[in-house]
Amino acid sequence: MDERGDTVVYRLGQDCDLDDLEEGKIYEGVVQGFANFGIFVQLNNRLRGLVHKSNVMSQHRERDPVLVEVLEIRSNGNIDLRETVCDAYQISEVVKKRTTTSISDLGSRIGRYVHIDGEIAQIKQTSGPTIFTLVDESGTLNAAAFVEAGVRAYPEVGIGDIVSAAGEIMQRNNQLQLEVKSLSRLEGADVLRVRDKIEQALDERSEPPEVPFLIRSDLLERLKPEMRKVARYIRRAVFTAQPIILRHHADADGISAAVAIEQAVTALIRENGADFDGEYYLFKRAPSKAPFYEIEDITRDLDFALKDRVRFGQKLPLIIQMDNGSTEEDEPALMRAQVYGLQVVVVDHHHPDEVVDKYLVAHVNPYHAGGDFGMTAGMLGTEIARMINPSVEENIRHLPAVAAVGDRSEAEERGRYLDLVKETCPEEWCMKIALALDYQQFWLRFNDGREIIKDILNLNGDPELHRNLVNLLVEGAERAIEMQVEAVMPHIEARSLPNGAWLFQIDVEMFAHRFTFPPPGKTSGEVHDRLCQKYKGDPVVTIGFGPDFAVLRSRGVLMNIPVMVRELRDEIAGGGVTGGGHLVVGSIKFLEGMREEVLKGLTEKIGEAPIEE
Amino acid sequence: MDERGDTVVYRLGQDCDLDDLEEGKIYEGVVQGFANFGIFVQLNNRLRGLVHKSNVMSQHRERDPVLVEVLEIRSNGNIDLRETVCDAYQISEVVKKRTTTSISDLGSRIGRYVHIDGEIAQIKQTSGPTIFTLVDESGTLNAAAFVEAGVRAYPEVGIGDIVSAAGEIMQRNNQLQLEVKSLSRLEGADVLRVRDKIEQALDERSEPPEVPFLIRSDLLERLKPEMRKVARYIRRAVFTAQPIILRHHADADGISAAVAIEQAVTALIRENGADFDGEYYLFKRAPSKAPFYEIEDITRDLDFALKDRVRFGQKLPLIIQMDNGSTEEDEPALMRAQVYGLQVVVVDHHHPDEVVDKYLVAHVNPYHAGGDFGMTAGMLGTEIARMINPSVEENIRHLPAVAAVGDRSEAEERGRYLDLVKETCPEEWCMKIALALDYQQFWLRFNDGREIIKDILNLNGDPELHRNLVNLLVEGAERAIEMQVEAVMPHIEARSLPNGAWLFQIDVEMFAHRFTFPPPGKTSGEVHDRLCQKYKGDPVVTIGFGPDFAVLRSRGVLMNIPVMVRELRDEIAGGGVTGGGHLVVGSIKFLEGMREEVLKGLTEKIGEAPIEE
Amino acid sequence: MDERGDTVVYRLGQDCDLDDLEEGKIYEGVVQGFANFGIFVQLNNRLRGLVHKSNVMSQHRERDPVLVEVLEIRSNGNIDLRETVCDAYQISEVVKKRTTTSISDLGSRIGRYVHIDGEIAQIKQTSGPTIFTLVDESGTLNAAAFVEAGVRAYPEVGIGDIVSAAGEIMQRNNQLQLEVKSLSRLEGADVLRVRDKIEQALDERSEPPEVPFLIRSDLLERLKPEMRKVARYIRRAVFTAQPIILRHHADADGISAAVAIEQAVTALIRENGADFDGEYYLFKRAPSKAPFYEIEDITRDLDFALKDRVRFGQKLPLIIQMDNGSTEEDEPALMRAQVYGLQVVVVDHHHPDEVVDKYLVAHVNPYHAGGDFGMTAGMLGTEIARMINPSVEENIRHLPAVAAVGDRSEAEERGRYLDLVKETCPEEWCMKIALALDYQQFWLRFNDGREIIKDILNLNGDPELHRNLVNLLVEGAERAIEMQVEAVMPHIEARSLPNGAWLFQIDVEMFAHRFTFPPPGKTSGEVHDRLCQKYKGDPVVTIGFGPDFAVLRSRGVLMNIPVMVRELRDEIAGGGVTGGGHLVVGSIKFLEGMREEVLKGLTEKIGEAPIEE
Repeated sequence: MDERGDTVVYRLGQDCDLDDLEEGKIYEGVVQGFANFGIFVQLNNRLRGLVHKSNVMSQHRERDPVLVEVLEIRSNGNIDLRETVCDAYQISEVVKKRTTTSISDLGSRIGRYVHIDGEIAQIKQTSGPTIFTLVDESGTLNAAAFVEAGVRAYPEVGIGDIVSAAGEIMQRNNQLQLEVKSLSRLEGADVLRVRDKIEQALDERSEPPEVPFLIRSDLLERLKPEMRKVARYIRRAVFTAQPIILRHHADADGISAAVAIEQAVTALIRENGADFDGEYYLFKRAPSKAPFYEIEDITRDLDFALKDRVRFGQKLPLIIQMDNGSTEEDEPALMRAQVYGLQVVVVDHHHPDEVVDKYLVAHVNPYHAGGDFGMTAGMLGTEIARMINPSVEENIRHLPAVAAVGDRSEAEERGRYLDLVKETCPEEWCMKIALALDYQQFWLRFNDGREIIKDILNLNGDPELHRNLVNLLVEGAERAIEMQVEAVMPHIEARSLPNGAWLFQIDVEMFAHRFTFPPPGKTSGEVHDRLCQKYKGDPVVTIGFGPDFAVLRSRGVLMNIPVMVRELRDEIAGGGVTGGGHLVVGSIKFLEGMREEVLKGLTEKIGEAPIEE
Repeated sequence: MDERGDTVVYRLGQDCDLDDLEEGKIYEGVVQGFANFGIFVQLNNRLRGLVHKSNVMSQHRERDPVLVEVLEIRSNGNIDLRETVCDAYQISEVVKKRTTTSISDLGSRIGRYVHIDGEIAQIKQTSGPTIFTLVDESGTLNAAAFVEAGVRAYPEVGIGDIVSAAGEIMQRNNQLQLEVKSLSRLEGADVLRVRDKIEQALDERSEPPEVPFLIRSDLLERLKPEMRKVARYIRRAVFTAQPIILRHHADADGISAAVAIEQAVTALIRENGADFDGEYYLFKRAPSKAPFYEIEDITRDLDFALKDRVRFGQKLPLIIQMDNGSTEEDEPALMRAQVYGLQVVVVDHHHPDEVVDKYLVAHVNPYHAGGDFGMTAGMLGTEIARMINPSVEENIRHLPAVAAVGDRSEAEERGRYLDLVKETCPEEWCMKIALALDYQQFWLRFNDGREIIKDILNLNGDPELHRNLVNLLVEGAERAIEMQVEAVMPHIEARSLPNGAWLFQIDVEMFAHRFTFPPPGKTSGEVHDRLCQKYKGDPVVTIGFGPDFAVLRSRGVLMNIPVMVRELRDEIAGGGVTGGGHLVVGSIKFLEGMREEVLKGLTEKIGEAPIEE
Repeated sequence: MDERGDTVVYRLGQDCDLDDLEEGKIYEGVVQGFANFGIFVQLNNRLRGLVHKSNVMSQHRERDPVLVEVLEIRSNGNIDLRETVCDAYQISEVVKKRTTTSISDLGSRIGRYVHIDGEIAQIKQTSGPTIFTLVDESGTLNAAAFVEAGVRAYPEVGIGDIVSAAGEIMQRNNQLQLEVKSLSRLEGADVLRVRDKIEQALDERSEPPEVPFLIRSDLLERLKPEMRKVARYIRRAVFTAQPIILRHHADADGISAAVAIEQAVTALIRENGADFDGEYYLFKRAPSKAPFYEIEDITRDLDFALKDRVRFGQKLPLIIQMDNGSTEEDEPALMRAQVYGLQVVVVDHHHPDEVVDKYLVAHVNPYHAGGDFGMTAGMLGTEIARMINPSVEENIRHLPAVAAVGDRSEAEERGRYLDLVKETCPEEWCMKIALALDYQQFWLRFNDGREIIKDILNLNGDPELHRNLVNLLVEGAERAIEMQVEAVMPHIEARSLPNGAWLFQIDVEMFAHRFTFPPPGKTSGEVHDRLCQKYKGDPVVTIGFGPDFAVLRSRGVLMNIPVMVRELRDEIAGGGVTGGGHLVVGSIKFLEGMREEVLKGLTEKIGEAPIEE
């Protein structure tokens, strides 16, 4: 009875279960079936009980409404009821006592009906259900809502909304999924409360575990805070189902750096229980053509990302640049990224220009901490990969050594990383791997070649294949280099400069095989190495030039290429001179019609540079 | 009893419902279940009634056949039956009184079993059901037929067949779908009847609504009938689920024209209730590399369309060409389209060659109605878009102004279109948008960049992003132009021609930055503008040439480039001269080895051209 | 009773059916439903019987366990039971007497529960079930296992595993599918037994049917064993759901050869009952840019194949090379294929280098059997296609004739193949088809253009379209050739050589239209043909050269191009000379800067070559 004296009849909400039922109370029900000993009465979609024939008051047909009193709730879950009749009564709705479950606690709730508060990270329409990716403070969960094959469920819910979802937890193989029964946007203060909770928890989860570096290095210690920051952004992207685009320099160092991250991220995506195909569509690794983020590349990345957002409901991606991204040449691309609010993190060891920092959320660069080029991207990338996901360490610990020899690092860390794997991957083998990477990437053009690259780096658990493949590629690369050098060498023009240095010039388009390995830059390097060998002890400068470019290598001549380029730009009006690089290794571009003048000017400047003692 | 004196027993067809049942008649049934007050008997898949235990004649098991008389059909749909027994009887099949429902009337029939006559427009096999797209005189409907996951249902039914489909109407979000229970090809006279009805109704539906033009223009009024024809073809394609390929010139005018149509069509596809992904796979916008339909492009379009027809059951597409398609250079592609019976419509403002008309089903061109180039494709496209789908007007009404300034229109309509949006999109801003489009498209190469382009055109409802993006792009474009001009200007060769005109020549491959913005044609234009500025009042011709081409710009010289090209072709044997364009703006191609001779001949002709007073 | 005197109660396994039930025995059951005449008891998921109320011992609720004796199994499958009660009893599990069914016998078992032993050939995760492709000694079957939408079922089972699968056989349209109820890896001796049985049966199935050649040819008879071997590998790939990549020369002969195989294979895939889309993802035809397997091509093929293996569970592919693959230039690609253990078969008529054989599992080449180039790849391909699948013969029997005229075969087989189709496809029409193929492929670049190519070859059952398309293409090709020849001819440099031969030289980059049809090689050929016509009876050599290459055609001069190339390579240091071809038709590559020297040396050698009598 309620205060007005009416009988109270309870109506169970559809998500109520045994916990919400009380003996002695009267409930609304519906006749569901008949047995010779009584009738079954459904109390809601989830609960039904038996009215023994001795307790049946009247004749019923299926689906008839009926009032019943709960006599007993047995331990096995059976419910004994008695039919009852009231003339006047008061309906009281029984609302499920909602207890929100954390996504990380779902493992123990399989088959149970749960409530989850979270943020919508992605909405994917399949030809079956709509898959909502939910993120809460503890994890990521796919929630499948089915209206009809191929039809978007809950169209009023969008990415970034804070929602309350309810349904049954189903087990996948290693994953759980929510079968959505209801999904609705939270409003008002609830949004803030949940969002805050998620943000705070995400901050905690994204915090990388404390792992000591693979080697002792003061430089790494100084870089550590920024490295952890990069790891944090990446972990957070994984935990919030944000896509990741990893752009990197297409050489052995850049590949090593990027693959280390790839290993850490794809494993973390799988562990985090995302969609079975998540490691493919949430993570893309893309070698860059240029040693910077070209406008063409950001354009393509943005084009795809914006279309994916509209068509497939994905978040805008986190951009990672590795062995790339530190120089002013990246600025035009970064400006575009910024207009769209894209997060960009950079891990690079090229000499950084300050100008890029205003576009980046994190930027690891050894020059920021008193280091230099010798701390390669592959070293940094591998250490960051371990911060992201320590479980991949065993697989990737040889990557810094490969990167070190690939980039001819002379940093003290080089030796320590080589020492670390000297049993399993001695220096000579690292060099072979590095050459194999360069050669293979040349033929892959700008495809990632994920599996082939993993085979070259021995990440696929087939050491024999790894060995055979690397040997084959090295053999091919060496043969190609020999053939190129043989073609080029007879055409080298040598001269002695005023400062006593040798200058060697070679037209690498007229006198080299084109469109094959090694390309002009590497050809110039190989020639330079041989000339240095031949002119042991002498200062040597080698220029490989084409119609509108020149590549410089030098030994023993204290050039400053960036300064020389700037001077030539000013001195030669209409020369269209651009370029740069390091002090003694670099490249210059110019207008094709001005080649003679530019090369002349360049030669003069080289002839004036001081000679190293 | 029938005439022979036998009792008649009725057998209900599986799609019969309550309307087909009559009290007092005897029906075949099957025992379906038991209650303590009687047994349930199923009359067909959709109807079942109760035989009260007092009316049961014998003991039954489930699935036993039984004859029953209908005692009463209650208002709530319950059916009271009495078991009956006959020794000899006559079976009479009750066929559902078929009433065909129009697709546009389905909104009020959700959950009902309906019959639809229509034409099969597409057949898509999903990993679940087979989706048949049905078109009738009133609309388009997806019909899902399920045999088994991934299995083609009703393989005997093909595209273009006239069929009768039956099933239940299910609600999607904003869409309806037929759950197919039966689907069969109509035969004989039924085919003609239905096809005629559909054709006639489609003709009516495809008729564009009458909307006045955005501005007053006699020229537009004269073009109106042909514009409506284009709109009609496009509407019809949408209503019949025919894919559309929109090819367009990759400049600001062509993009504006094409995006206006894109907005109208994609919205109409959504409104028409097609598949949730229909706006993507039924509509493709593709910027063309050349200012005409290249053989390579039609080859690719045909290759894909024919494969899609075989593999995914799509119709062959309607081709739309915008800011492109009117000249004889399009003929080779159009001939290929014709062999396959492709429909092609053209909306262009380049000087038309009559020869193309025999390949086109509609062709809007201002020259056909006394207008000229000044009536840009973007103006025409926007007005046609409003005929296709007036609901998009608010979004696209600034596009003609962007097109006008982008193409430097001098038509009287230019000012009116600019006036129309002077508050929200003043002329200066239109110019920025146009430059931003050109610059962005350069980096997009020949991708449509749908979302980025919409952001530049402020179609995505984010005016701040729009502003920032346009400003960033304009800044980048202007810097690039300055850099290019700076490189080029010192290398210009000037001479005075016999007719008193200045001739400026510049080798845009030797003395300009290559493979970057601005490309040679635009570079020549920028140089020409600056020279016109400098030599104010004088007649000026600027030639930018490369190894095998030259781009011409002129002011104050009454040249006729197409005539000059024809003469050079005849005069210089083995010169391989081709090309054309407008009277005073154009381009010439020639054999690389004949450049000197061709440029000499060209210069002579320019020197003979009369000077504008 | 068992030996201990206890009553034995049987528990039916879930896959037991009526055959496993015996009258008089006692079984465990569960109460399933109530009727007024008794209760229904379920014995397992598939069997249930009735306990008449006279035989009911106690009051039950649904799902109550109960012991029952089988009184009678009626002929209609009904089972009469009696309830029984035992105090002490012994449980005995009844295991289904497993009878393995062969895949080829499933046609008569639709709707039945079957057991199949086989090898897993592919595992495809769909957004619905996981599809396992099973291969046994008799056929291929898709088996659908459903855990939950998009979730990989039986993750412990991998490709190549020998398994036992059980479930119900469902009918598709023309296909059967297993609805998996259980799937498990076999162990120990079972694996060997099943694998041996499968291998042996596969060997038998893969054996091509004996079909006589379309024409009489001793050469073909000698090549027959190796041709059958190729057919065997291809049939086996189809039967084991191994993907096939067919790489071929992009000319009329190569296309004819490849399309013949395509027709045979795609039809066989469909007949073999694979997935509805199998003919697309299991078979790829790819025209090659170069006349050999380029490193770039194998790199792309490997990249995709390895990714597909990891991501989509496909086997590594069988590679077929047609009109390609016999020369040492293929070696680098073949070495890469070998490292990954890829099977490669070659059908070529270029002069073979022995070195390739160690990488191939089969190699058909007329030179191996005393034949030569005149036995074209299209002839061989068509005959092999008939061995693979004789049912396609009617469609493809004109392909050898097209190939013969396309490659200017002078073998005796040429006339016989032309005779074969002289009614339906006379020689002149074959020539048109061949020209149309070359021209169309030029515009398709390196896409297969499957449907367009089939239209050109009249394989799509629309002879009118075929006629119109070929005529249009031939017209376009001829016009383009005329235009090119007209441009080139005025620039030919003629000279008389010491040996009395005419030498004609033409710079095909400076004096020909570029990037259009005909490309340099074909342009040289067309020019050569016209010069031969003009200088009837005289020995003629035509050299078309570009910056770093030269194409040679000759008549009446006994050159040996491979020897000349080798000599030039040795004589011109730093010339970078490579190349080859046939004796009197070939091409040379060199460093751009060495062109003059190389052409001079080449001319000298040609002038020394003996003249044909």
